[in-house]
Amino acid sequence: MNDSVVALDAEAKALEAPADHKDELRLWLRLLTCANLVEATVRRRLRDSFDETLPRFDLMAQLDRAPDGMTLSELAQRMMVSNGNLTALVERLVEVGHLTRAPSPSDRRAQIVALTPGGRRAFRKMAGAHEDWIADMMSGLNAKDQADLMRALGKLKSSTRRAAEKDSGT
Amino acid sequence: MNDSVVALDAEAKALEAPADHKDELRLWLRLLTCANLVEATVRRRLRDSFDETLPRFDLMAQLDRAPDGMTLSELAQRMMVSNGNLTALVERLVEVGHLTRAPSPSDRRAQIVALTPGGRRAFRKMAGAHEDWIADMMSGLNAKDQADLMRALGKLKSSTRRAAEKDSGT
Repeated sequence: MNDSVVALDAEAKALEAPADHKDELRLWLRLLTCANLVEATVRRRLRDSFDETLPRFDLMAQLDRAPDGMTLSELAQRMMVSNGNLTALVERLVEVGHLTRAPSPSDRRAQIVALTPGGRRAFRKMAGAHEDWIADMMSGLNAKDQADLMRALGKLKSSTRRAAEKDSGT
Repeated sequence: MNDSVVALDAEAKALEAPADHKDELRLWLRLLTCANLVEATVRRRLRDSFDETLPRFDLMAQLDRAPDGMTLSELAQRMMVSNGNLTALVERLVEVGHLTRAPSPSDRRAQIVALTPGGRRAFRKMAGAHEDWIADMMSGLNAKDQADLMRALGKLKSSTRRAAEKDSGT
């Protein structure tokens, strides 16, 4: 075989399979399916059992970890939602008595939101149920499966971060 | 230690930790973080490199596997989106020449959408890039990590399905 034939073959192969990463693609689709399945189940159960939505649950989870409350902009940053969307979520939770909203003592232009005692009780009840649901959905995994998954996902998180950083780096 | 003390202790412990599944919760949060990171990166790159959105990419991926096209309602079912949302996606892709839309020969009330040759070429180009991005994001996983992940996610998918089926069963 002379050089030009080898070169042609390599080129032909590259054209046929310009990106032969089907295994990684399959893995990503399975990961996405799992995440979507778990999330859809959580959404449905929050609605059916507590008449609550996932974004409101997530918002209350953030505030449960902040005994003195949080400004709206801190909250928006942590939840990665727009201020507009956040305001609608907060309005609704203030209405039902789960949250208080007041101007910040240090900066009157900033609003601080916090859980009310009743809101905290309601959240803790939902959080307990949520934890049971997740454990139930993961019941097919033994201790070794869980450890494997945790470790592999840790690596995936790091290499995805590295890949994503290239975008902002250029 | 007498029996009643043991019983009291067990009860106190149960009250303190009514649902001690923190490991499963941590695993779920890591899985969700990974899925969100990968998806956000894909969304951003589709927009920056191809001026395309993820829902439109997903729609074209469905049609790429259907050489004769698909009715709007089949498409809505597969993509798990409402007919209203789907119509907006289809309109836009028809406008730019990636899709055709025509009444079904077998049922004039049904609309069949299909990729145009240009739409298929555009999709294949994006799909190649998408596959490279995913492989890049997974580059931190060696073959064993990938196999572990695939296997553990397979188990998670099954046990999540089983858990979710209880909801519709009652």
